[in-house]
Amino acid sequence: MAGNSFGKLFNLTTYGESHGPALGGVIDGCPSGIELDLEAIQNELNRRKPGQSAIVTQRKEPDTVKFHSGIFEGRTTGTSIGFVIENTNQKSHDYTHIKDSYRPSHADYVYDQKYGFRDYRGGGRSSARETACRVVAGAIAKQMLKNIEIVAYVSAVGTMKLDKPYTELDLTKTESNIVRCPDETMASNMENYIKEVRSKGDTVGGIVSCVIKNAPIGLGEPVFDKLHAELGKAMLSINAVKGFEYGSGFHGSTMYGSDHNDAFNSDGTTKTNFSGGVQGGISNGMDIYFNVAFKPVATLIQKYETIDKDGNAVEMQGKGRHDPCVVPRAVPIVEAMAALVLADFHLLNKLYS
Amino acid sequence: MAGNSFGKLFNLTTYGESHGPALGGVIDGCPSGIELDLEAIQNELNRRKPGQSAIVTQRKEPDTVKFHSGIFEGRTTGTSIGFVIENTNQKSHDYTHIKDSYRPSHADYVYDQKYGFRDYRGGGRSSARETACRVVAGAIAKQMLKNIEIVAYVSAVGTMKLDKPYTELDLTKTESNIVRCPDETMASNMENYIKEVRSKGDTVGGIVSCVIKNAPIGLGEPVFDKLHAELGKAMLSINAVKGFEYGSGFHGSTMYGSDHNDAFNSDGTTKTNFSGGVQGGISNGMDIYFNVAFKPVATLIQKYETIDKDGNAVEMQGKGRHDPCVVPRAVPIVEAMAALVLADFHLLNKLYS
Amino acid sequence: MAGNSFGKLFNLTTYGESHGPALGGVIDGCPSGIELDLEAIQNELNRRKPGQSAIVTQRKEPDTVKFHSGIFEGRTTGTSIGFVIENTNQKSHDYTHIKDSYRPSHADYVYDQKYGFRDYRGGGRSSARETACRVVAGAIAKQMLKNIEIVAYVSAVGTMKLDKPYTELDLTKTESNIVRCPDETMASNMENYIKEVRSKGDTVGGIVSCVIKNAPIGLGEPVFDKLHAELGKAMLSINAVKGFEYGSGFHGSTMYGSDHNDAFNSDGTTKTNFSGGVQGGISNGMDIYFNVAFKPVATLIQKYETIDKDGNAVEMQGKGRHDPCVVPRAVPIVEAMAALVLADFHLLNKLYS
Amino acid sequence: MAGNSFGKLFNLTTYGESHGPALGGVIDGCPSGIELDLEAIQNELNRRKPGQSAIVTQRKEPDTVKFHSGIFEGRTTGTSIGFVIENTNQKSHDYTHIKDSYRPSHADYVYDQKYGFRDYRGGGRSSARETACRVVAGAIAKQMLKNIEIVAYVSAVGTMKLDKPYTELDLTKTESNIVRCPDETMASNMENYIKEVRSKGDTVGGIVSCVIKNAPIGLGEPVFDKLHAELGKAMLSINAVKGFEYGSGFHGSTMYGSDHNDAFNSDGTTKTNFSGGVQGGISNGMDIYFNVAFKPVATLIQKYETIDKDGNAVEMQGKGRHDPCVVPRAVPIVEAMAALVLADFHLLNKLYS
Repeated sequence: MAGNSFGKLFNLTTYGESHGPALGGVIDGCPSGIELDLEAIQNELNRRKPGQSAIVTQRKEPDTVKFHSGIFEGRTTGTSIGFVIENTNQKSHDYTHIKDSYRPSHADYVYDQKYGFRDYRGGGRSSARETACRVVAGAIAKQMLKNIEIVAYVSAVGTMKLDKPYTELDLTKTESNIVRCPDETMASNMENYIKEVRSKGDTVGGIVSCVIKNAPIGLGEPVFDKLHAELGKAMLSINAVKGFEYGSGFHGSTMYGSDHNDAFNSDGTTKTNFSGGVQGGISNGMDIYFNVAFKPVATLIQKYETIDKDGNAVEMQGKGRHDPCVVPRAVPIVEAMAALVLADFHLLNKLYS
Repeated sequence: MAGNSFGKLFNLTTYGESHGPALGGVIDGCPSGIELDLEAIQNELNRRKPGQSAIVTQRKEPDTVKFHSGIFEGRTTGTSIGFVIENTNQKSHDYTHIKDSYRPSHADYVYDQKYGFRDYRGGGRSSARETACRVVAGAIAKQMLKNIEIVAYVSAVGTMKLDKPYTELDLTKTESNIVRCPDETMASNMENYIKEVRSKGDTVGGIVSCVIKNAPIGLGEPVFDKLHAELGKAMLSINAVKGFEYGSGFHGSTMYGSDHNDAFNSDGTTKTNFSGGVQGGISNGMDIYFNVAFKPVATLIQKYETIDKDGNAVEMQGKGRHDPCVVPRAVPIVEAMAALVLADFHLLNKLYS
Repeated sequence: MAGNSFGKLFNLTTYGESHGPALGGVIDGCPSGIELDLEAIQNELNRRKPGQSAIVTQRKEPDTVKFHSGIFEGRTTGTSIGFVIENTNQKSHDYTHIKDSYRPSHADYVYDQKYGFRDYRGGGRSSARETACRVVAGAIAKQMLKNIEIVAYVSAVGTMKLDKPYTELDLTKTESNIVRCPDETMASNMENYIKEVRSKGDTVGGIVSCVIKNAPIGLGEPVFDKLHAELGKAMLSINAVKGFEYGSGFHGSTMYGSDHNDAFNSDGTTKTNFSGGVQGGISNGMDIYFNVAFKPVATLIQKYETIDKDGNAVEMQGKGRHDPCVVPRAVPIVEAMAALVLADFHLLNKLYS
Repeated sequence: MAGNSFGKLFNLTTYGESHGPALGGVIDGCPSGIELDLEAIQNELNRRKPGQSAIVTQRKEPDTVKFHSGIFEGRTTGTSIGFVIENTNQKSHDYTHIKDSYRPSHADYVYDQKYGFRDYRGGGRSSARETACRVVAGAIAKQMLKNIEIVAYVSAVGTMKLDKPYTELDLTKTESNIVRCPDETMASNMENYIKEVRSKGDTVGGIVSCVIKNAPIGLGEPVFDKLHAELGKAMLSINAVKGFEYGSGFHGSTMYGSDHNDAFNSDGTTKTNFSGGVQGGISNGMDIYFNVAFKPVATLIQKYETIDKDGNAVEMQGKGRHDPCVVPRAVPIVEAMAALVLADFHLLNKLYS
């Protein structure tokens, strides 16, 4: 209710501040008997962790997950799965300057207004550090979903945008570069661009695209819990996301019905896929694909003016180790959230069909 | 769980097929003592109803709402509010042709696959007719929210797009034309365009934009139930929606942090509003604004090829009374869903602050 | 959230006041393809309805249920099932005397305190009339559960108590008398006793017992949603219920472990069944049985002193048509609530096994 | 959904097996700004922990709780509160004998049937060890509820039963003896009785009674989420509980309405309190009181016959360190669950009044 849980049947509840002793969570509703590859889970965390490459924050944090329950002799038991990720890199900074001031386009101001005060060390609960827990749960969901393939990649950094649809890309190349863009030339350009942006102490936004293959027909619960509606919520709940579109998306709003309708083949598949694998809120067996827009990171390594608690103008100096562009590290988070949505609907579908 | 409920505290559960005896719903969690203007509720329904103008479906349906409970001596009692909208215009058609065939980009195929069979008269539960119930509940939510102003309007029909931000529009003119576009010249062009599209038996997509003014600071529950994430889910749950963006949206992904950050004024308001009134998932007191992309209606008044249940190719002829463009009638639906989201967070916020 | 919904997967949301135009509800999550016997549903309502015999309230109310959705060609479609029961017998009484005064051990006082005012006609929402909706949903749940047999009966009226366990009773005789007690001699004595109590304008409490046969192994979700915990909540949510016990119940608290433990047979069944068919919160395949204690109805046909809104002493005269003892009509309600609990766990169990 | 969460607004999700590395949980929905007395929380855990006295299990387990989040500078922040209790006393037993056999009246058999296999070390998730997490959350709930006093005590051990109502007891004496019975003579007799039972390797049941004072009027959400229904579910979810009654309880079912009705005083309080502080499912400001029946612990220190996985008869020998009677340690658990229920309704009530 208070917002720290996601999913109905495959349910994740998380906790943790960026500079507290640990983050963690509980996964409830994971069926029993799933053989877990714990290394694969840690690998997903490693794809998200800071310090992994030259174009992300240089903060060092091992992000090691420890499981406390729900797994026995290598398999899920059907009971709740508790896990913890210790924070090992909380510097005993002096945070006084942040304590009483509000960084622009951060959550400092609204947390103070909503809760009366806040854990001002780093972003506290509003830090994207919490997404580590999503990645853990998403990695388990992926293992439950087995044959369903969920692949995300960077399709835009700032105004640099892949102009090809996913069907013309070799998505297996996504992890071969640090930007996580499957087109190598574009990846190289993006990498240089991000470095340039960082050198100015600035940041830039981008887009993560995601494709889900082999999803069975029938996922999604009309009328409110449509598959794409839950995917949208899942993506919009990730820090810094400003928009979501699936299938034909915003471009689809400019089209004629006679062009947009997806004609059937005799086996129920469709000749085109403007629907993005979802019709009436229910998966139709075609590829599900969508785009997620991320704003530029708010923390700049520059001087700027802002206000303190009393509304006085103050000058602040951005410092620390921050991401110049969030999308390379967002790729595994997008996949994790997609996996959580699919896991939930997969279980529901077992029920009602 | 099965998808016919929306909202946690201000909760709406709906039922009803397009050609059954009636639609209806239950609103649970509406606080007691709210004086209801029943005429205002019916007016919202009238804004959505078919047959209201020359550019929407010419089906005639009074869409009269009757309340069964939860209201006494003009005020809400705090108990659940039951309501019913009778279907008066179900023609005793011969639906055999739809029964065994699947219309492209409709939900016919996936409903059959998911549920084993379907109410094939009209779209059954997948018909946008169900949104009438959302409008009833949204109208009550609006009355609960009092000073919070929620105004939606048509900002694009096909490729015709308003190039001004909402701040440069006179939104009070939205209801002065049948397109519901606040720019009168554009509205007139859009109207002609829609008529032209219809004359070809075709349909076209569009965009509804929405602005929420006077929302208090503090709405939204991190980390998963961020205000914009729930708004996104709400909008994506409306029939035919393909995308959602708020604040700077997809355009924001192309920007630099140094341009995108919203500098504070001394009173906590911001000089710019790329954030779209939401920071860290919580409303900051600035205007909340977002765009909702609608695909073109799938029902064309044309001949087309499709398949029957057994995968045989069949030719169908679109007929009946359908909307050539859904956005004019979608405006009150977008407002209603926004009101439901705000009502829920408004109650939660009372709790935690 | 606000208390008018029951069940997670097989979910019922209800509305309606005793003297409003209608009661009704929505069942969400009922799987598709269930052939419904509508007459059997109405029969369950008839078992609950007023005026059915000489020992219940003589109010006449047909309690006819009409379905609005979710059923097509005799089968459930998997979409939400809306239904309505019209109130046909709301006398246009003068309720002024109730409006400003509080009847002892009724909900008048607390409703006014909680909600600020109340629908004072009859008990409004607090009237047991709302249980009619539970019976409708329970009847559908029973049909979904097929082979699971749920049989309730009256085991005590006041101090008159059946001293035999259910295993020594012929439960098929329950419906053969108006008390719904399977022992005919006891039934006859109870009937006379209830008539005597009524002749004094008084009321008396009683106990309904319930047995569930053929429930599969595995129902119940530890640690909080144990099968018996949900059954307990379900029963305690029925008007006038004061206690719940299952298996050995309160008597079990006086026993030794060496007597209470249920030894296994080689097929996993147990030689005794003090566990009441539930171990660790999960059904073990043995009969589930429990007792539900009902207090005496608060409405007496006598003069009594009470207070008005301002705390002044006032004299009131109980009148109208009320039940002298609630348990005969409570039998189908207990069964309905048990069916709802089992339906929910039955679906969950499909999921996790 | 899968049963490891309790509460809607003040929500607890737990995990942990008796012999895994740790137990833990997440509390979501605790309002911000509550000054927490961490020592008081640990004290509640100490009241529950094993080894605390001569009449409970002699297993030694410090049960130290560590908080990971949601508390900053001594106060709750409004974000989710994560906590962990490490298991320090898991002996590296040989559990083979339990692995393949089913102890009577334990959850071994149903867990294997439901989940396909189980963590057979100790009771795994079915062990009452999980209630430690409930006590942590309940202790925080108590601190949030401030003036509301929740006091439980042992009122029966086997057939030894306090024959006085709580109003005639000095409840402040409850913690002065190891049985937690406020009548000192009775406490002494009970203590001797428990020791005698233990000396035979046997166990015995008992009753915990609970009184809640100073609860505000208005707690409880009709029609399904009545205050006493949620209290009932909460209590029945505790390991070994067989029954729940409140106010007049089962005895009330034998009474006449003319005796049972609680006449009003002019201030809205009542002269008697057969209602147990709850009318129509809503607290009326009077003391709330209820009884909880516990069965005898199933683990005996005796030889007994049972079956293995294949249905073969096997002889087992109960051993280890177990409670001969669960009620002394159950007292803080009953209080904790009551506190969780009240916390939830307290928040809901803020909302709707």
